[in-house]
Amino acid sequence: MNTSSAPRSDWKVLCENRRKAQQDSIPREWLLSELPPISQRNVLDIPSKSGILTPRELGITETTDLGVILQKLRSNEWTSVEVTTAFYKRAVIAHQLTNCLTEIFVDRALERARYLDEMLEKTGKPLGPLHGLPVSLKDQFTMKGLETIMGYVSSIGKHAESDSVLVEILYKCGAVPFVRTNVPQTLMWGETYNHVFGRTLNPYNRTLTPGGSSGGEGALVAMKGSPLGVGTDIGGSLRIPSAFCGLYTLRPSYGRLPYYGAANALMGQESILSVLGPMTNSLSGVIEFVKAIIYEKPWDLDPVVIRKPWSEAEYKLSEHGEDGAQLCFAIMWDNGVVRPHPPLLRAMKMTKDALEAAGHKVIEWECHRHIEIYKNAETIFVADGNHDYKTQCALSGEPLIQTMIPTDDEEYQDHDYEPHNPLVKELLWQLHDEKRELRKSHLDHWNRTVSRTGTGRPVDAIISPAVPYTAVPHGLNYDAFYTTLCNALDYSTSMFPVTHVDPKIDVPHEPHDFYNHEDEMIFKLYQTDKFAGCPVGLQLIGRTLEEEAILKMTEIVDDALSKWKAMTMQI
Amino acid sequence: MNTSSAPRSDWKVLCENRRKAQQDSIPREWLLSELPPISQRNVLDIPSKSGILTPRELGITETTDLGVILQKLRSNEWTSVEVTTAFYKRAVIAHQLTNCLTEIFVDRALERARYLDEMLEKTGKPLGPLHGLPVSLKDQFTMKGLETIMGYVSSIGKHAESDSVLVEILYKCGAVPFVRTNVPQTLMWGETYNHVFGRTLNPYNRTLTPGGSSGGEGALVAMKGSPLGVGTDIGGSLRIPSAFCGLYTLRPSYGRLPYYGAANALMGQESILSVLGPMTNSLSGVIEFVKAIIYEKPWDLDPVVIRKPWSEAEYKLSEHGEDGAQLCFAIMWDNGVVRPHPPLLRAMKMTKDALEAAGHKVIEWECHRHIEIYKNAETIFVADGNHDYKTQCALSGEPLIQTMIPTDDEEYQDHDYEPHNPLVKELLWQLHDEKRELRKSHLDHWNRTVSRTGTGRPVDAIISPAVPYTAVPHGLNYDAFYTTLCNALDYSTSMFPVTHVDPKIDVPHEPHDFYNHEDEMIFKLYQTDKFAGCPVGLQLIGRTLEEEAILKMTEIVDDALSKWKAMTMQI
Repeated sequence: MNTSSAPRSDWKVLCENRRKAQQDSIPREWLLSELPPISQRNVLDIPSKSGILTPRELGITETTDLGVILQKLRSNEWTSVEVTTAFYKRAVIAHQLTNCLTEIFVDRALERARYLDEMLEKTGKPLGPLHGLPVSLKDQFTMKGLETIMGYVSSIGKHAESDSVLVEILYKCGAVPFVRTNVPQTLMWGETYNHVFGRTLNPYNRTLTPGGSSGGEGALVAMKGSPLGVGTDIGGSLRIPSAFCGLYTLRPSYGRLPYYGAANALMGQESILSVLGPMTNSLSGVIEFVKAIIYEKPWDLDPVVIRKPWSEAEYKLSEHGEDGAQLCFAIMWDNGVVRPHPPLLRAMKMTKDALEAAGHKVIEWECHRHIEIYKNAETIFVADGNHDYKTQCALSGEPLIQTMIPTDDEEYQDHDYEPHNPLVKELLWQLHDEKRELRKSHLDHWNRTVSRTGTGRPVDAIISPAVPYTAVPHGLNYDAFYTTLCNALDYSTSMFPVTHVDPKIDVPHEPHDFYNHEDEMIFKLYQTDKFAGCPVGLQLIGRTLEEEAILKMTEIVDDALSKWKAMTMQI
Repeated sequence: MNTSSAPRSDWKVLCENRRKAQQDSIPREWLLSELPPISQRNVLDIPSKSGILTPRELGITETTDLGVILQKLRSNEWTSVEVTTAFYKRAVIAHQLTNCLTEIFVDRALERARYLDEMLEKTGKPLGPLHGLPVSLKDQFTMKGLETIMGYVSSIGKHAESDSVLVEILYKCGAVPFVRTNVPQTLMWGETYNHVFGRTLNPYNRTLTPGGSSGGEGALVAMKGSPLGVGTDIGGSLRIPSAFCGLYTLRPSYGRLPYYGAANALMGQESILSVLGPMTNSLSGVIEFVKAIIYEKPWDLDPVVIRKPWSEAEYKLSEHGEDGAQLCFAIMWDNGVVRPHPPLLRAMKMTKDALEAAGHKVIEWECHRHIEIYKNAETIFVADGNHDYKTQCALSGEPLIQTMIPTDDEEYQDHDYEPHNPLVKELLWQLHDEKRELRKSHLDHWNRTVSRTGTGRPVDAIISPAVPYTAVPHGLNYDAFYTTLCNALDYSTSMFPVTHVDPKIDVPHEPHDFYNHEDEMIFKLYQTDKFAGCPVGLQLIGRTLEEEAILKMTEIVDDALSKWKAMTMQI
């Protein structure tokens, strides 16, 4: 027996057992009688054809406006048990098709739903603003009694002793946490694959990635297997899957929403903070979530949360000309590092036309010190010399994943990471100093746009791609700077879906002067057919701690797009 | 010639020249004809006896209520030129007695004052909420064209190219920055001594320290040489000099007020952030300053400032029973590390009696994990292995100061600091992780007091010493945990003066079971006569980002004390 292979087989056995336990946690009657062939790329319509959901359950799960769902729960028109059951069935179907779930705990969720129904029956009053709503959670949000695998073999068997603050607050709001969703090992990939639960697929096209690291949420919510998911974002992890799966999200600024008690990678890294946010099929869902959490005064439970109540004044655009009648947006057509694919350029053009038709101004955004900002952020992310990832992997013997490209059986490679051994002062504090200077410089740059807007104000918000392409084949998503820019500068940023790749219109462009090798690679990746039907979304970038205003402005953009699409008969 | 001594004499020459330049910047007619003998300890009454200020100027400078000064400036009853001149004269007298100033720039300040007077004359409107007010600044707040020595020889001759954001905003508010004030080398001492400008003395008793690091401000404002000073605080640097000099101050939470562009020690250290705050003789001064700065939306100029407007609701105690009619305070009589000297215990008793007489509740604070919190903070402060200080000193060859105890001629000792060479992950991120857990634990501990208050709320604010003693002889101030606790937990904390050491009442207590060697040393330090007449102040500790509420509660405490003193004929 080769002793050096012993830990390897050990961790593989652990993974197999854990997956089997997951499989066993699924009620038999929710299993598809026949799985579609793997060659079937788009699986979005399988839930409705499966026969597992009743027509009423299909009606519930296909209600995308979260405001409507909440209203029907509050009024007891729909019970929490039936809404939770409906979404649970659909989530489990989504899982069989895209491998999006980690924790499945049907009894526990239904018990909670039953309790809420009884409360409403008895008191006539909903428990809170999210009364009865099933909510899915990225596999970081610790729940008492459950494991939090978070992509590491070493987490198997470790059951949490308490709820994370977010979960605590969701309970206060009356929500029903009902599943947890898959992530990549280390959390620092824009795709979703780990040794315990494997790879999550994009339901629009299963040969493509749903993005990551909140990729399980992306696939699940796109399948309408959850009305509201919660993910996290340190470099784009909410926005990449939202872009690839056609969802709405909000990356709030540092410290607006309560992260305390959630498992995380790079714990204690406070230079560029990970934040949490909602992922959902309707903008109303994003707004309902953010308001509900902030109304609960999360600063009383998480010492890092900023004491800043929800501001109706800021939501009414008090800082943006009061009524939002004429805003000035700037479009970042190209960040000067990677040129976006044709569908993204078309989506920006559509948004520009729609906003102008609605009476707003749209100017061009001038990029500012992007390479420096990117380099600073990327250096901060690896400032520990990958010590964190290596330590986590060493606990179980599982290898550190080197690529997201699928292989038959990834072999263990013992990569020895040389820690940078940085002096705190020489590396990290210098990076902080540089970061602060870059943030100030970018803020001043933004303020100077007052000379170009004609509104008397600087640009109200910036429109840009979140990723320069739509969902790509597994293993090929390696550009994250359109998103990371906002993490580094701590700008509050939303995502909204605009359109889908249309093979008739979105033909390849002529080659441009490539900015760099990566830009050339990404240009060559574009083939219309490969991406047909994929969702195309954009970011709306506001300033730091402008959550209220950016949500209202996203409503304005979203409305303008709806009206413009209706007018021009585009979709 | 001994080459190794060359840099030493070089830096000494630089210091001598710089001090001479400072001396030359003082108008001859403002020099005292005769300096009091060094044996004269208390010098507070010298300005009024000096003959340098006119009776009107004495009247202006002895107006301690900042609201009154501002009102007279706005109404043009007092011009900015006369107010600035009056405080400038008194500041220069204070400097001759306590060595509190660094930058003196009379012409520039008076030109600004003249401009403001003309503006008011012409438009009938004040430029901003601090119209015409002379403001002193700690020697960190960079002003275009001036040096920012900040206690380092290496800064001599380096003139700033732009104003710090605070100065920029003070200009917008109509203020007149008029002097800058002394600090210790490295800024990390609770006293005030450096090689360039020397040592600052306490005007209540010049054998004692005014505290630090904002010690120049402490001495200056106590001498009424400035109506409003701005200092900074990373471990007590606003509160220690305010305690030792009988002033009001506020240590706001991280990111509430704009620090960008100010010089600082440990630049880029973001684990426990230094913050800025006002130091003044009246609570109205603290409130006017904080409101004025926040009204200017500092988040538009400093990317790290939190977008949180001044909240009148929070100031009206919306989170503390609405009207503040019955608050519940907790007193930290002793932090379990160092027992406070008798005058501090008496001050707390006075405050308790005053608050109870005013109808409030006062309970005992139970200390929580103090040693862990202190150790975590202190380790963060030295996480760079003193690399920062060493580098700054190496630039000029000046020695790193090892003690604040006065010596005839401090000899150069080439201490080789072994940097800790910490791995970012192993040391700093672990410290961050620990810090966050401690903050959460302390917050939960505070929340649990709800069971003891009888108000339905947790304790509204905590009363404690800022330092366990009143001003001590130079070199003997080495305990800073009562203050550092609030920096580590980021609690918004005010300081208010309570009384003065009364030799008749404040007799030494019997020895207690000492907590540790430091506690014993500090116990033995107390001799009633040595401290007679020294100011005694206390901290009022609120939660993170509760600036508005803590200011209102400080008003309530201050009013209660005034009424109680009047009633009981105490002072």
